[in-house]
Amino acid sequence: MAEKMRAIFKEKPAPGLVMKQADVPTPGPRDVLVKILAASICGTDVHIYDWDEWSQKRVPPPIIIGHEFCGKVIEKGRDVTSLEIGDLISGETHLYCGLCYQCRTGDAHICKNVKLRGVDTTGCFSDYHVVPENTAWKNDPKISPEVLSAQEPLGNAVFTVFSGEVAGKTILIMGCGPIGVCAAALCHQAGAEKVISVDLKEFRLKMAKEMGADVVLNAGEEDVVKRVMNETDGEGVDVFLEMAGSPKAFKQGMDSLKPGGRVSLLGIYKKPFEVDVTNDIVFKAPVIHGINGRKLWDTWYKARAFMRSGRIDLNKIITHRIKFDDFEKGFQIMKSGECGKVVMKL
Amino acid sequence: MAEKMRAIFKEKPAPGLVMKQADVPTPGPRDVLVKILAASICGTDVHIYDWDEWSQKRVPPPIIIGHEFCGKVIEKGRDVTSLEIGDLISGETHLYCGLCYQCRTGDAHICKNVKLRGVDTTGCFSDYHVVPENTAWKNDPKISPEVLSAQEPLGNAVFTVFSGEVAGKTILIMGCGPIGVCAAALCHQAGAEKVISVDLKEFRLKMAKEMGADVVLNAGEEDVVKRVMNETDGEGVDVFLEMAGSPKAFKQGMDSLKPGGRVSLLGIYKKPFEVDVTNDIVFKAPVIHGINGRKLWDTWYKARAFMRSGRIDLNKIITHRIKFDDFEKGFQIMKSGECGKVVMKL
Amino acid sequence: MAEKMRAIFKEKPAPGLVMKQADVPTPGPRDVLVKILAASICGTDVHIYDWDEWSQKRVPPPIIIGHEFCGKVIEKGRDVTSLEIGDLISGETHLYCGLCYQCRTGDAHICKNVKLRGVDTTGCFSDYHVVPENTAWKNDPKISPEVLSAQEPLGNAVFTVFSGEVAGKTILIMGCGPIGVCAAALCHQAGAEKVISVDLKEFRLKMAKEMGADVVLNAGEEDVVKRVMNETDGEGVDVFLEMAGSPKAFKQGMDSLKPGGRVSLLGIYKKPFEVDVTNDIVFKAPVIHGINGRKLWDTWYKARAFMRSGRIDLNKIITHRIKFDDFEKGFQIMKSGECGKVVMKL
Amino acid sequence: MAEKMRAIFKEKPAPGLVMKQADVPTPGPRDVLVKILAASICGTDVHIYDWDEWSQKRVPPPIIIGHEFCGKVIEKGRDVTSLEIGDLISGETHLYCGLCYQCRTGDAHICKNVKLRGVDTTGCFSDYHVVPENTAWKNDPKISPEVLSAQEPLGNAVFTVFSGEVAGKTILIMGCGPIGVCAAALCHQAGAEKVISVDLKEFRLKMAKEMGADVVLNAGEEDVVKRVMNETDGEGVDVFLEMAGSPKAFKQGMDSLKPGGRVSLLGIYKKPFEVDVTNDIVFKAPVIHGINGRKLWDTWYKARAFMRSGRIDLNKIITHRIKFDDFEKGFQIMKSGECGKVVMKL
Repeated sequence: MAEKMRAIFKEKPAPGLVMKQADVPTPGPRDVLVKILAASICGTDVHIYDWDEWSQKRVPPPIIIGHEFCGKVIEKGRDVTSLEIGDLISGETHLYCGLCYQCRTGDAHICKNVKLRGVDTTGCFSDYHVVPENTAWKNDPKISPEVLSAQEPLGNAVFTVFSGEVAGKTILIMGCGPIGVCAAALCHQAGAEKVISVDLKEFRLKMAKEMGADVVLNAGEEDVVKRVMNETDGEGVDVFLEMAGSPKAFKQGMDSLKPGGRVSLLGIYKKPFEVDVTNDIVFKAPVIHGINGRKLWDTWYKARAFMRSGRIDLNKIITHRIKFDDFEKGFQIMKSGECGKVVMKL
Repeated sequence: MAEKMRAIFKEKPAPGLVMKQADVPTPGPRDVLVKILAASICGTDVHIYDWDEWSQKRVPPPIIIGHEFCGKVIEKGRDVTSLEIGDLISGETHLYCGLCYQCRTGDAHICKNVKLRGVDTTGCFSDYHVVPENTAWKNDPKISPEVLSAQEPLGNAVFTVFSGEVAGKTILIMGCGPIGVCAAALCHQAGAEKVISVDLKEFRLKMAKEMGADVVLNAGEEDVVKRVMNETDGEGVDVFLEMAGSPKAFKQGMDSLKPGGRVSLLGIYKKPFEVDVTNDIVFKAPVIHGINGRKLWDTWYKARAFMRSGRIDLNKIITHRIKFDDFEKGFQIMKSGECGKVVMKL
Repeated sequence: MAEKMRAIFKEKPAPGLVMKQADVPTPGPRDVLVKILAASICGTDVHIYDWDEWSQKRVPPPIIIGHEFCGKVIEKGRDVTSLEIGDLISGETHLYCGLCYQCRTGDAHICKNVKLRGVDTTGCFSDYHVVPENTAWKNDPKISPEVLSAQEPLGNAVFTVFSGEVAGKTILIMGCGPIGVCAAALCHQAGAEKVISVDLKEFRLKMAKEMGADVVLNAGEEDVVKRVMNETDGEGVDVFLEMAGSPKAFKQGMDSLKPGGRVSLLGIYKKPFEVDVTNDIVFKAPVIHGINGRKLWDTWYKARAFMRSGRIDLNKIITHRIKFDDFEKGFQIMKSGECGKVVMKL
Repeated sequence: MAEKMRAIFKEKPAPGLVMKQADVPTPGPRDVLVKILAASICGTDVHIYDWDEWSQKRVPPPIIIGHEFCGKVIEKGRDVTSLEIGDLISGETHLYCGLCYQCRTGDAHICKNVKLRGVDTTGCFSDYHVVPENTAWKNDPKISPEVLSAQEPLGNAVFTVFSGEVAGKTILIMGCGPIGVCAAALCHQAGAEKVISVDLKEFRLKMAKEMGADVVLNAGEEDVVKRVMNETDGEGVDVFLEMAGSPKAFKQGMDSLKPGGRVSLLGIYKKPFEVDVTNDIVFKAPVIHGINGRKLWDTWYKARAFMRSGRIDLNKIITHRIKFDDFEKGFQIMKSGECGKVVMKL
């Protein structure tokens, strides 16, 4: 095994990232060592690159960043029972404790003692990476490593979409980023009567349409609420998925919702904003789910089912494939916003 | 049968109410005519008395008001099958159409075509009243008419409390009005580990304590969030029931909630207010239920079960019993706020 | 309006049916009168034709039979609010009371006082038919009357399939009658990872395959449990839908089920049979749903959504279209078993 | 620390148990070593004593048996984070793998690779015992070790009772063993309208009554179904909990159930038996849950809540407290059936 490897570091508390040599890590008794084959750049990685307010508070340089990957197991600890050398794995970003109230009652995704891979602790943007067995996910080897490295947004979409019923329902999705278009695809594949996707960028609306949205609306050009009402015989949608992180989108969604409908909120808002709790929540009587991460491991099983049955093809949202050494270019593409997923091949 | 009867009218579009003679109404083929035995004054009736903004928009004088009652069936329409002369009944305030999407899918409490008894159509503050069979509820005759006339707030409490799990849970209830104290009683009776009730008035906190709250907090004197955290080993409560209609109470409740907990919102806020959706909903990942009215008829069955098993004694929240002719006094007591339920005997 | 009409009667307590003239009925204040455009023959109608043990106990000759129809509203009672002359409607077979415990808590499909159209009371196999508004369903006029007359088995399938999760699940369906093949179609359309349909007849297996089954097994030729295990990586299926009414199919299904899976039982067994409750239920820990009829009206809304979005085309299961006057031929085809739905056009 | 300890062994593949000296075990990095303070004898232990058919197939002598305990942590492995020296703990009997499908989707209680403490691997009937951190449960030190050693049947009861709604419901419990009487107590404490407990032994019925049953019936002397119908206004019970393991009890329960009710099956039947699936499941349309073990860790949290709030006092079901050295006497009492829980103090 190589003793040195390439790794992308946040080296100092300042903007930017550097690629450097690092020691290949050694797995503990319940860990596996993987050779990384592909890694995706997430919006969170860009925040760390930019060294924004959130990163400054949370990320401890020097640290290898990155959390979306697919790799091959090349070494396993002596207590590992569920993985073999040669397995193609990805890993859940949330390194959960397994022992707190949340972990012990089915909510490990909001573990009280969670550590995030590539944020709080060593990340995966490197030739080799150590993965604790309890955060490892064994992939279907028929799917390509690039696609597998990009499955986390699909997992977020799975969690949001399936926090309630979908089949036979009309669904409004605000936001057409990678998670939003995965959500449109899932709703379509899961028997929604009609999927209405909304965004401000034509590039993204086109992607939503290709992935399965029945109707796409440009919120900058159309009266969203009016259009949704027309598309639903004046009843409003059964389900509203908020993936835009915009207070305006939130309000439009609530106004488009059928009384007694379902709302799942995944988007992140920059700050608190005014909500008409009385009319939009108490009187309208929806069920609202806050969506944080991906429920473990239900969402991974469902995501796998949709990928290996051929229902969801993530190749459609991978717009850029670059070499690991060109990571800087990948981050610039991400910052431009003119992309779906950007995947680095190692 | 008497041909004339006493009735409390909102006669003109102005503050105040008057008692007048009216014709005894005639039931249709699917209605029953009841002799009213007891009727309770609700906060909504006070709004109509005061002729506030909401009333001005909605209530069409001249109209008999009132919706909380218990009466005896003295005549039945020819198509009535589930009620008999002599039955002691109450009636659901929401006169639902039975045919809209909401009615046909278990949500008649948010019927699209709903008419409210005593608000949109003839009320029950009169010696006799016509009740459509499909809105009638047959009472247990072992319970007194006064108590039965006051069971609607219990129904609201039932809906709010049981919109999620209660047994073995820690529960925070903001607000100790009639619905809030009924909620405390229900949580206690349904196996909550700890019920924490919060209000600003000692009079109400005392009632909550008597009805079953384990801990009562005066929000004007104590740091609510800190106390709740202390009472829950720093984990926060499992369930937060908002029955105060105050943005401050809403925020304190969200801050006191365990990640992944349950929130049920019944309180009415005067206007929109700032909510930290990102931290309090998306990241904290609760399920939030908007609670409007009482789910039909599950809540009536549950309320009856708690009353007839002796678990809930609404006599404890009836603070005033007055004669029908003294209704004006009843409204003045309600306006003072120094009361639980005010019941008129006919 | 015509004063006389054709109608199919069970005239005497003996096998057979006759077509006779009858008076066109008059709608009451909450009824509509419809001109029947198409009517489907159900297995229940065949039982009545044959005058089997069940029919002898339940059906009161002389009576017009039939319950699956689509017709046009030509007259409406004065209290009807949700339908207009010209509307294309079908009707729920279960004429529910709306007032019993089951009706009042969302379970009208198991109403305590239920009367079945065409079994307990006048049926729809006639030129004109009276439908109470509360059992009428307004159809999408873009769909053909023949298809609309055949939507009840789709409703049964909807109820069975969606009594639990489907998306991303592996599903075993025992039985490929009209309800079984509708179930296969629904599962496929609702995002199942894999749908395995089982029957003894190639004719039916072929229909299941066309409607969406991924794998079809002839239980007379293959080892069902072994095949299911192979198709599911040895885990067993997540969901087992029993639509065959065979004790052997029941056992094979339980043996093919993943521990903790879901079972929905719709098939009717001729008599009680041995069940290994300890191993197949207590230790295996599934959730089992008994499925009776169609939940009102959720199943109708979902069935409509699947039809009008083009996901389910019931034309594929209508194998025979005959004239009303040729009803006798229709019953003979039904008895042969070599058919899907048999629809009579009027 | 002592180097030798007492331990109860199944030494040879034959009836009987012996107490012998054994080495005090050494905890691994994620284990704790506990000094056992109290241990309860379970029916399973009696089966192993008797060396019945099941034991012969499953238990590998020589092995220390026992799985219900309370002990104090006296040593902890270096990777243990959630426990401290001095903590009072119990342990879940099901040593789950944490990595199979069931474990990863909230069903660790039916782990595919489960090992049972004291059955498949070293048990706790010894002075010291090693407990993996992920199976340890930190107790409330205000509760006595004897009670804490007997909390597993409470956990089973919690799982069975709360697999559906309880508050305001009428509930039939077949069987008044330790789990059955805990179930009666839980139902009563969780707001059931009426709890009806059934058994054949007066001793057990008396215990059920003391723990909270409203009505107790001796199935040997009364017509159970008739009595249940009388107690429920002819509607039948909302919920049926089967904890007797008797086909007759199963049938009586199904006949006593309200259409659309809930059934939870925990009892173990010696062999398969005839079930009227058509009438009792398909037409009656209940939801049926197979109950295996205790859902992890929800049931432990709920059990703790009921114990530490004082709602459930397990002292009432501990009928015998004996010395560890007198274990033989304990097993004889268990075999007599004239007891609740038998606890050994160490």
